[in-house]
Amino acid sequence: MIITIPETADWLMGRDAFLILTHLRPDGDTIGCAGALAQGLREMGKTAYVLENPETTSRYADIVKGYYAPDGYVPDHVVVVDTASEDLLQTNAAGHVGNVSLCIDHHPSNKLYAGKTCLAETCASCGEIIYHILSAMCGSVSAKTAEAIYVALATDTGCFVYANTTADTLRIASLMIEAGAPHRELNKLYFRTKTRSRLKLESMIISGLEYHFGGAVCISTITRNMMDEAGADESDVDDIALIPGAIEGVAAGITVRELSGESDCKISVRTMPHINAGAICKHFGGGGHQMAAGASGSYTVEEFKEKLLKVLAGFFPAGV
Amino acid sequence: MIITIPETADWLMGRDAFLILTHLRPDGDTIGCAGALAQGLREMGKTAYVLENPETTSRYADIVKGYYAPDGYVPDHVVVVDTASEDLLQTNAAGHVGNVSLCIDHHPSNKLYAGKTCLAETCASCGEIIYHILSAMCGSVSAKTAEAIYVALATDTGCFVYANTTADTLRIASLMIEAGAPHRELNKLYFRTKTRSRLKLESMIISGLEYHFGGAVCISTITRNMMDEAGADESDVDDIALIPGAIEGVAAGITVRELSGESDCKISVRTMPHINAGAICKHFGGGGHQMAAGASGSYTVEEFKEKLLKVLAGFFPAGV
Repeated sequence: MIITIPETADWLMGRDAFLILTHLRPDGDTIGCAGALAQGLREMGKTAYVLENPETTSRYADIVKGYYAPDGYVPDHVVVVDTASEDLLQTNAAGHVGNVSLCIDHHPSNKLYAGKTCLAETCASCGEIIYHILSAMCGSVSAKTAEAIYVALATDTGCFVYANTTADTLRIASLMIEAGAPHRELNKLYFRTKTRSRLKLESMIISGLEYHFGGAVCISTITRNMMDEAGADESDVDDIALIPGAIEGVAAGITVRELSGESDCKISVRTMPHINAGAICKHFGGGGHQMAAGASGSYTVEEFKEKLLKVLAGFFPAGV
Repeated sequence: MIITIPETADWLMGRDAFLILTHLRPDGDTIGCAGALAQGLREMGKTAYVLENPETTSRYADIVKGYYAPDGYVPDHVVVVDTASEDLLQTNAAGHVGNVSLCIDHHPSNKLYAGKTCLAETCASCGEIIYHILSAMCGSVSAKTAEAIYVALATDTGCFVYANTTADTLRIASLMIEAGAPHRELNKLYFRTKTRSRLKLESMIISGLEYHFGGAVCISTITRNMMDEAGADESDVDDIALIPGAIEGVAAGITVRELSGESDCKISVRTMPHINAGAICKHFGGGGHQMAAGASGSYTVEEFKEKLLKVLAGFFPAGV
């Protein structure tokens, strides 16, 4: 059942003993939401814990580590944030599958797997929904809650630059700064600091960019050798698929990345609005949105590129 | 004489026939302010023109080109935006020096050269002051005005990521989007598109980064050869001095750039708060702020680096 923001606030106010779950490969939005919701509920006198997500990177751990559920904690209500389906729940959530009381999410693809779902598809980040809920519950937010909400908003919008950013995103971010979110330190940490490995990897990627169809398509390659040579790990590849699509004149920016084996690759496709990224990826059994999609396949990097170029010929007819 | 925002609004309301001037090497803030002020004044029934700035790049020309003063236009009042001193006025402003009626600015270093100065040093961009003035005059802003103000705000804060961003910056940006500023298109144009030359230059810069003092100092080099090889021009080097200072662990990021001659270099220094960038540059006759400063000198790149390392030894004592 889908419920509104005021109904969600009422539902939370009338209950206690919550456990909050996040999604696989947790990002700043799911972690920020978990931290903010736990903090906000505690400020209302509730018992609220976050189930530690084993994939949480050091980048985001500080936001939630104060709320981790102790061993043996038995919640009355399981709440999931920013997670479209139970398949996408954190790896250690198996015991809670089928038993989620409330899901708070902004993904249009939400499978409505929870008892109640508070879904706001127009929000750039799930953090905005958490802000609206806590604000309906408490009237205002504390500095600690504001910090976690700011992280959710800023990380899901690339610091307010991506196309999902709305007037409401900026308005709430402004309120969070007024409430005490240390935005200068957070921006420095999340958006203005790169590791040496990341920089080296970027430089290698740029040197290897290939242009096709008169520059309308740019293909970027990331091999395991490049990762090794740059000393890069998973935490260094956040948003790295944005590079080829951000080049002047490029309508489709495609990143081909070699995964664990030589014949194991994935592609990330970022396009301008007139090229359907999801349709490109559908040719490889993948999918996604109009402007961002992905797929994977048992090909080498070179094989995948060759197949891609054949598919792309249908999207970029000669002479157009 | 310094006047407040309401006084500035009253002053403008009581007058007519304005000419608006911008600063040398015009950026998005000065150009956005000029466009927004001209548009806002026209909407109030005033005659207002912008003096074409010959250094305006194609990046910003669209924002002001509809307001250029025709030949022979004789204004009653000259208004300057975002310009701290008359020395910094656009190159063709000589005829107006000593005759500026009003200056609207956010630089603490403003020399108070105008008859009246509306100075708001806490504003991240001069565009925020223009918003407050127009809003005091008209109660609201049109979509066209909102677009120019959004450009001023966003470009002066790196799309709300730099440390000058405040809650008010984000609040006004949110209002501008609500008023019709096409923020998605503007963000794509200004922050999410790079030229191939810029990317190539970045890759070359990254390959040549040098680390000193245990990684606390990173020196980036840009030679004329690199510019040529990348096919880069002045429009490709915006904010390029941010690269070395944005690396994890770096407290002073320094860019040494070769200018027109082999023995003609400038340095840009970006530091963490505990290292005084201005003090480093003072050793070379330059200056600036605590965290951002610059200097130039008649040295080759290698000579400048050697001298820099000697100066830096005083800021990064061994073992610290």
